[in-house]
Amino acid sequence: MKFAFQIEARDGRARQGRIDTPRGEIRTPAFMPVGTAATVKGMMPEQVRQTGADILLGNTYHLMLRPSAERIAALGGLHRFMNWDRPILTDSGGFQVMSLANLRKLTEEGVQFSSHVDGSRHMLTPERSMEIQRLLGSDIVMAFDECTPFPADELVARQSMELSMRWAKRSREAFGDRPGYALFGIQQGSVYPDLRAESAEALRGIGFDGYAIGGLAVGEGQELMFDVLDYAPGQLHDDKPRYLMGVGKPDDIVGAVQRGVDMFDCVLPTRSGRTGQAWTARGSVNLRNARHRDDGRPLEEGCDCPACTKYSRAYLHHVVRLDEMIAGMLLTWHNLRYYQRLMAGLRAAIAETRLEAFVADFHALRAQGDIDPI
Amino acid sequence: MKFAFQIEARDGRARQGRIDTPRGEIRTPAFMPVGTAATVKGMMPEQVRQTGADILLGNTYHLMLRPSAERIAALGGLHRFMNWDRPILTDSGGFQVMSLANLRKLTEEGVQFSSHVDGSRHMLTPERSMEIQRLLGSDIVMAFDECTPFPADELVARQSMELSMRWAKRSREAFGDRPGYALFGIQQGSVYPDLRAESAEALRGIGFDGYAIGGLAVGEGQELMFDVLDYAPGQLHDDKPRYLMGVGKPDDIVGAVQRGVDMFDCVLPTRSGRTGQAWTARGSVNLRNARHRDDGRPLEEGCDCPACTKYSRAYLHHVVRLDEMIAGMLLTWHNLRYYQRLMAGLRAAIAETRLEAFVADFHALRAQGDIDPI
Repeated sequence: MKFAFQIEARDGRARQGRIDTPRGEIRTPAFMPVGTAATVKGMMPEQVRQTGADILLGNTYHLMLRPSAERIAALGGLHRFMNWDRPILTDSGGFQVMSLANLRKLTEEGVQFSSHVDGSRHMLTPERSMEIQRLLGSDIVMAFDECTPFPADELVARQSMELSMRWAKRSREAFGDRPGYALFGIQQGSVYPDLRAESAEALRGIGFDGYAIGGLAVGEGQELMFDVLDYAPGQLHDDKPRYLMGVGKPDDIVGAVQRGVDMFDCVLPTRSGRTGQAWTARGSVNLRNARHRDDGRPLEEGCDCPACTKYSRAYLHHVVRLDEMIAGMLLTWHNLRYYQRLMAGLRAAIAETRLEAFVADFHALRAQGDIDPI
Repeated sequence: MKFAFQIEARDGRARQGRIDTPRGEIRTPAFMPVGTAATVKGMMPEQVRQTGADILLGNTYHLMLRPSAERIAALGGLHRFMNWDRPILTDSGGFQVMSLANLRKLTEEGVQFSSHVDGSRHMLTPERSMEIQRLLGSDIVMAFDECTPFPADELVARQSMELSMRWAKRSREAFGDRPGYALFGIQQGSVYPDLRAESAEALRGIGFDGYAIGGLAVGEGQELMFDVLDYAPGQLHDDKPRYLMGVGKPDDIVGAVQRGVDMFDCVLPTRSGRTGQAWTARGSVNLRNARHRDDGRPLEEGCDCPACTKYSRAYLHHVVRLDEMIAGMLLTWHNLRYYQRLMAGLRAAIAETRLEAFVADFHALRAQGDIDPI
């Protein structure tokens, strides 16, 4: 079975569709929970699936260090290792090696670095990144790139983008021909439309199964991000999936879907779940706050997750305050479920050509804020 | 519906039976997972039930401090608060106030203390303990006692036991008549057979629905504990459940069942699960050990828990090393499941009058030790 993308409906620039892979379907627009080190923190894989996730993201940088790609390959691949038989997308390691590793040395060849865990020396190149992602058994492989820092002046942004395009070509060559597996290219160019256009042109020339919009969600703010998203997706292939890496808050996702993005990943729902923060249709709720102490009502009325159907805000407050594991487990579950309900809502709205009304309702409900204390 | 205990089979001094309560049946010998602060750490209640647990233990001392018995009562009781609709046994708070609280002052009236959490001042008396356990909605309430420290000379042990017996009487009076709920008395007397006999006599005179053997598992060691268990259970009512508090390791439980004990609780399976230690029929296994790093085999062959059926030792080692939440979740699940499989094995062996052979097999398998590294 081949990797294939079909657009089933459009509403303005937004698209609703599906990616078919040998490991199952990915409904788009899709949100991919992050399973950094072969686990979505605080969740069993079956539970992640129950939230509605079709695909997980794994981090090449973390996995190459611990337990190592070769070890995972010997144990049957990442899917088997972590007990998730549906699609997995892995990043290239490029972003995290620059943000987490020590003693980094970036050359034309790649990035030499020492592990933030034990100081061991490693090298990531386009070829090594492709090899690692192949060893992991990743279904959607990301080209190795340099995520241009923000802000970057146009010259720096150009040089960085051009390096990424040379690496994209090497990634494509190293990836080879692997039926059923996909390789995505990553557009760079910072906030410069001409550079974005050049990058898109270069990627199209190489040819990929999908395209990521890189270099965003790195501190530029929503307004500037949306400015780029007003033109960048249109520069990419219309008939391939478009993936906005590391995004984001619910309103970031909604705005990006309106601008033609199909795929997202972000640690926000999982990470905030472990700190007592819940995401709901009425905004975010800090369960640590004393106003929940005697509140017998559910976290979010109408949510079908266990945190909302089986527990009160008072209970969630209690376990958050005591740092009980179940606090992170329940709030992560809720947050992932909220994100997937949001994606399902977006897909249905696009399919029925009522995205504008859906987005208006989305913002109106958020503007109301959380329910009043009892 | 009344609280009732039936012995269904005997094998030597061991008994197999059932406790019926309005909230469900408790198969004995029973192991009760500990849900200290309204959660069995790392587990959802549905998962605890799936391990085979019929009843949980809650800690009065922790719950009275956070979130408070009155708050839980206002929210509908502990069962609803923590989403566990089966029986709950609560301790009296007596043991933990002496081991955890600060500025303790023990008088005939009770124990005055300051909270280890925020320094707030509290008083626990037999009457207040009964009130708290009633507010929580506990199905099996424990009499308020002083757990005699070990070692204690005979005079100290006598004075402590006699105080506990006066408190047992006050507990009984304060508990009153509550159909469907049970009150258990606690035998004290340290390692002195005469004191144990006097204590049993005093408790029988007061009359309880069940009897705990207190003051054990406090550092005396297994040999001395078994010495006491050779006579103490026989001093208590034959037709009431006998509960050995805070026990224990699998071989402690097996030896105590042989000596006529029906109920157990212990933090061991849950606490060790969070530190990477697993309990199996072949002894305990430290998953942190590097010998598991490349081991694709299950933790325990034949175990039906998710840790054993869906993951390799290599995966468990990886997530234990990284302190991922799923490590504690999976190993707690496994350990609770192992304990419940052990209890089911003991019950079946007693029912079929083959306990001696079961115990011999139990020790023989443990003596083999863990499987060899690959």
